[in-house]
Amino acid sequence: MTFSVAVSGASGYAGGEILRLLASHPDVEIRTVTAHSNAGQPLIDHQPHLRSLAHLTLQDTTPEVLAGHDIVFLALPHGQSAQYTDMLSDVPLVIDAGADHRLTDSAAWDAFYGGAFSEPWAYGVPELVVGSEKQRGALVGARRIAAPGCNASTVSLSLAPGVAAGVIDPSDIVTVLAVGPSGAGKSLKTNLLASEILGTANPYAVGGTHRHIPEIRQALAAAAPAAGDIRISFTPVLVPMSRGILATSTAPIVPGVTDVQIRDAWESAYADEPFVHLLPEGSFPRTADVLGANTALLGLAIDRSAGRVVVVAAVDNLVKGTAGAAIQSMNIALGLPETTGLSVNGVAP
Amino acid sequence: MTFSVAVSGASGYAGGEILRLLASHPDVEIRTVTAHSNAGQPLIDHQPHLRSLAHLTLQDTTPEVLAGHDIVFLALPHGQSAQYTDMLSDVPLVIDAGADHRLTDSAAWDAFYGGAFSEPWAYGVPELVVGSEKQRGALVGARRIAAPGCNASTVSLSLAPGVAAGVIDPSDIVTVLAVGPSGAGKSLKTNLLASEILGTANPYAVGGTHRHIPEIRQALAAAAPAAGDIRISFTPVLVPMSRGILATSTAPIVPGVTDVQIRDAWESAYADEPFVHLLPEGSFPRTADVLGANTALLGLAIDRSAGRVVVVAAVDNLVKGTAGAAIQSMNIALGLPETTGLSVNGVAP
Amino acid sequence: MTFSVAVSGASGYAGGEILRLLASHPDVEIRTVTAHSNAGQPLIDHQPHLRSLAHLTLQDTTPEVLAGHDIVFLALPHGQSAQYTDMLSDVPLVIDAGADHRLTDSAAWDAFYGGAFSEPWAYGVPELVVGSEKQRGALVGARRIAAPGCNASTVSLSLAPGVAAGVIDPSDIVTVLAVGPSGAGKSLKTNLLASEILGTANPYAVGGTHRHIPEIRQALAAAAPAAGDIRISFTPVLVPMSRGILATSTAPIVPGVTDVQIRDAWESAYADEPFVHLLPEGSFPRTADVLGANTALLGLAIDRSAGRVVVVAAVDNLVKGTAGAAIQSMNIALGLPETTGLSVNGVAP
Amino acid sequence: MTFSVAVSGASGYAGGEILRLLASHPDVEIRTVTAHSNAGQPLIDHQPHLRSLAHLTLQDTTPEVLAGHDIVFLALPHGQSAQYTDMLSDVPLVIDAGADHRLTDSAAWDAFYGGAFSEPWAYGVPELVVGSEKQRGALVGARRIAAPGCNASTVSLSLAPGVAAGVIDPSDIVTVLAVGPSGAGKSLKTNLLASEILGTANPYAVGGTHRHIPEIRQALAAAAPAAGDIRISFTPVLVPMSRGILATSTAPIVPGVTDVQIRDAWESAYADEPFVHLLPEGSFPRTADVLGANTALLGLAIDRSAGRVVVVAAVDNLVKGTAGAAIQSMNIALGLPETTGLSVNGVAP
Repeated sequence: MTFSVAVSGASGYAGGEILRLLASHPDVEIRTVTAHSNAGQPLIDHQPHLRSLAHLTLQDTTPEVLAGHDIVFLALPHGQSAQYTDMLSDVPLVIDAGADHRLTDSAAWDAFYGGAFSEPWAYGVPELVVGSEKQRGALVGARRIAAPGCNASTVSLSLAPGVAAGVIDPSDIVTVLAVGPSGAGKSLKTNLLASEILGTANPYAVGGTHRHIPEIRQALAAAAPAAGDIRISFTPVLVPMSRGILATSTAPIVPGVTDVQIRDAWESAYADEPFVHLLPEGSFPRTADVLGANTALLGLAIDRSAGRVVVVAAVDNLVKGTAGAAIQSMNIALGLPETTGLSVNGVAP
Repeated sequence: MTFSVAVSGASGYAGGEILRLLASHPDVEIRTVTAHSNAGQPLIDHQPHLRSLAHLTLQDTTPEVLAGHDIVFLALPHGQSAQYTDMLSDVPLVIDAGADHRLTDSAAWDAFYGGAFSEPWAYGVPELVVGSEKQRGALVGARRIAAPGCNASTVSLSLAPGVAAGVIDPSDIVTVLAVGPSGAGKSLKTNLLASEILGTANPYAVGGTHRHIPEIRQALAAAAPAAGDIRISFTPVLVPMSRGILATSTAPIVPGVTDVQIRDAWESAYADEPFVHLLPEGSFPRTADVLGANTALLGLAIDRSAGRVVVVAAVDNLVKGTAGAAIQSMNIALGLPETTGLSVNGVAP
Repeated sequence: MTFSVAVSGASGYAGGEILRLLASHPDVEIRTVTAHSNAGQPLIDHQPHLRSLAHLTLQDTTPEVLAGHDIVFLALPHGQSAQYTDMLSDVPLVIDAGADHRLTDSAAWDAFYGGAFSEPWAYGVPELVVGSEKQRGALVGARRIAAPGCNASTVSLSLAPGVAAGVIDPSDIVTVLAVGPSGAGKSLKTNLLASEILGTANPYAVGGTHRHIPEIRQALAAAAPAAGDIRISFTPVLVPMSRGILATSTAPIVPGVTDVQIRDAWESAYADEPFVHLLPEGSFPRTADVLGANTALLGLAIDRSAGRVVVVAAVDNLVKGTAGAAIQSMNIALGLPETTGLSVNGVAP
Repeated sequence: MTFSVAVSGASGYAGGEILRLLASHPDVEIRTVTAHSNAGQPLIDHQPHLRSLAHLTLQDTTPEVLAGHDIVFLALPHGQSAQYTDMLSDVPLVIDAGADHRLTDSAAWDAFYGGAFSEPWAYGVPELVVGSEKQRGALVGARRIAAPGCNASTVSLSLAPGVAAGVIDPSDIVTVLAVGPSGAGKSLKTNLLASEILGTANPYAVGGTHRHIPEIRQALAAAAPAAGDIRISFTPVLVPMSRGILATSTAPIVPGVTDVQIRDAWESAYADEPFVHLLPEGSFPRTADVLGANTALLGLAIDRSAGRVVVVAAVDNLVKGTAGAAIQSMNIALGLPETTGLSVNGVAP
């Protein structure tokens, strides 16, 4: 069976990546692509790398255009999904790449986003440890899926095994991320101009204001419901690479646990995962190794001098961080093999 | 008076930057440049950007060649300075850009470097808070100066005011740095090839093994002798910019201190400094803003949710991190105006 | 049927890209990977992005190890293939990614490479216009194939249609290429260090010395045997992107030809090609649009003021320039669908 | 004597670079900085690298604010200078960094810019060969100066010596330039976003439409008034470096001239110039070598196989291409030493 698909926000970076991955997915047909201001133009004018989709024309993003497909992807600015989702009730599977349906706590939504709160959907990070289970279970047969925030899923995957196993203390997490500017979208902002990014590192949202913080707290709380208060110092730094997240996350070692126990927490969590890998001791990942791939690579160090575990994670923000997570979740929801249409190999150098 | 200068290691990056700065310093004459394998070749072949020094030829690095100058800069691989310094006893001022004379603790030297321990020299970070004083005092009239490690001085300048003022707890510092590859020198290593650095972020020395860790601990211990144990989780990440360090350093807020007390610690420490600046509340620096300059820019956030102070610091690793620190220290040692020959303005964009 | 494959030079960039593409090719099994100094080590240590091949170990590059496969890829430094090819006579298909078997003219080999001349093999650029035919024909059923030089094939594809159609004059071609450093391989050379490439453009092989010049002359002479003397001013410029070639090639307009005749030369040549595309009038390609893809994108301008046609071509040097060309040629040689295992879509942004 | 200065367009890239250079010029006082939409804001908010000018506030760009200074720099979008210049008649020296006063031919202005034509001012490229003279002479005592286009001056300096000496044929020039995005200013355009520039090369204004073409033709015609028709194929390519122009310019060798005659044309033209240098035979420049410097470095190859001279030139578009040219011209106009406040050394790596 071939599923018909519509992708909104198709002229942007997230929408473009969803299309790039779907274009080589054997079980879907990309029938409709939509955009707002660019409606009526050829898709190829906005996504010149998607040669196999050169026949498609951008339509207006309206519920009418999106309805009537088996699957609809929403790649819209935050806060815009809700207006469509009510009118897409007949669509069997809707996947939102925006933030609107990620948070379960309306107070967190108010504090970090504001505007009307929307109900949470199944969270699209299958490998996430949830107590003694994985998040995968919530995605089987799901009809509404919220793809994760790219930074959030990277950090949650980095730390959830240790929190769930009780070997690290989640009350004093510190995370610093080197991120590429594609995560910010095609926004016309001075600080995203090439001249402002080339040759320089640029921090933003310093001091606890980044919108992915509550999403991480929610995921880690789910990993270990009894873990108590979860506190995160979170600092993203824009660096001159178009894609990629390299997240360095540290948390205090729980007194009394052994190195073997620590390493085993991550090894056992990810031993059978096709897309999340713990590298051998002493190895740490580069973002180049996952470019274009749906892979998250983790390196783990136990720093007894500092009293902290250090997890370095590499993710392609547009793939495993967004579009790949969406399609992996789609595969699970539809009962397809989970890895269909997704590469584990990066494009390097 | 004009001081005669010799610079060893003149074909490398640190030596080149010392020369670039000295070339516009009004009180020195660059008389001699030396190298090892490149001796006999024109300097301009190795430093094609130094047009004003096109007349110089690299000589062999020997004590005989270096002797007889008023000032000698050593920009040699770690462990190589000691063999020269004994034989340069008649040189009035020797400044070492290597690590050999930075550490006061031979055990720390053994643990992180190894080989014969050399006596510590005056540490070349004038603005560093040392109890109620500044490190500047130790440099007045100094005859032997150790220029700092670039990452070490960046982190020490970031945190020393707060440690000295007792507003942050130095026993659980976490620092993650985005750094350019020029800090690693002109070494022919696969991981420093352009194809391995472009478009990717690459962590190294993860888990407490970086050699600048004991240097930071030493500086912060000097900032507040009663501060107790100093522990640092330290992770550097190579990013695709030739120069620059963006260090994100966090430490727990000491219970009971107010936001005003915290901010005042840094403001009062650096209010009168020509080269170290605390940015206004809500502002954070980019490395581009200090490219080519002897400036360290700091941004400070107080994250009460995380219970941590976050200091983001931008430094040009080759200037304020190495060569500029050396020349600023030289100015102080010689009684020249401290800012002579050093720019506070960066080259941007 | 599944073909067994051995890839030599598997720890390098060209070898790595051959493996990346073969890993998703449905008709081959990668049985053997070899290297010289790295023999005995896991492939993943040298190609950490190739997760699906993490089970492979590098063997020594010897004829014995390579023999016994259906297909052997040689990704060795220039001049090293010949020693293996004699001993691989029983291997049904050998594809050389090096230069050894590209040139038909031993004098050109002597002038630009030197050393023993090897017999030419079928040249692996299927879309190349050869008189009224395409090079594709020479690849059907071929047992020995020479993959092209990346710059050479980019320029040849750019100009062959116009030369063959007689609308441009090949006696005064000027080509300037912006190229990424991965084309130079993993060589440990100072000028390939990241600090030497980041933030700068760096010309090399200026003035007619680049080894791809005779390869272009050979291809264009084959395109139009009566075209007369072919002269090329060829200047490559290293720029800070890991992959990609953006070639700007110009040639004088032949007097009397119309704009329609010019444009038609390229349009008719590439109308049915799956991997080579002429963009619409006024559109020009970026290298990002072909990153990771086996696509060559061409933009054509007719500059009557200058009296020249300008063709701008974008190619991924490691894919369409090397590994993709090799595998596309393999498909043709083996009678497989030509596009098997090769993507037309780039990875952007 | 200290000259008072006003700089308009002070929040942009060209204005920022004029300020950076003036900040270390001993004979001027920066009294006024102006902008349009950003008026009223601190300069440091828009130029965070200019620490020494942190005390300045942006004023509105009006003739009243600009009047009353000894020197006024106009760094405004093309076409906007004229409205100010009439009202600044009392200002002793006005230097325009825009295009309004560069062209002497109103037809060329109409064809490439459009809008009202403004009278030409003294062209600010002192080293340009003008027959048997240099352009410098026209700048002595000048009261109105047009700073050059960055690409135009780079190409004109590359070829004028050969055209003037009659050793190259200016009727078939081909130039391809690798350029950084800062030349396009702080414009909010999608194609200037970091995600669109990082990791890719991007041609623009292909086919003879770039506005700097008539400026080059004008300069080369002045170099050799009897040279006849001047035709240029000109293709700029955006590459991922914030600053810099690497121009590869070729022209046919005039029949009968010797290699010595060719090389001597450039050597004799620039032998005594402080800022323009011909590198030794076989050497070619990188843009990194001139970053932040007012230097133009040229490499020359004589390619007899192609029948062309190749000149590769490296220039910092914001310094020698714009702001440095303006200040060098200012020095000449005011009778100051020509090199005052300008560096010949680049910032590398």
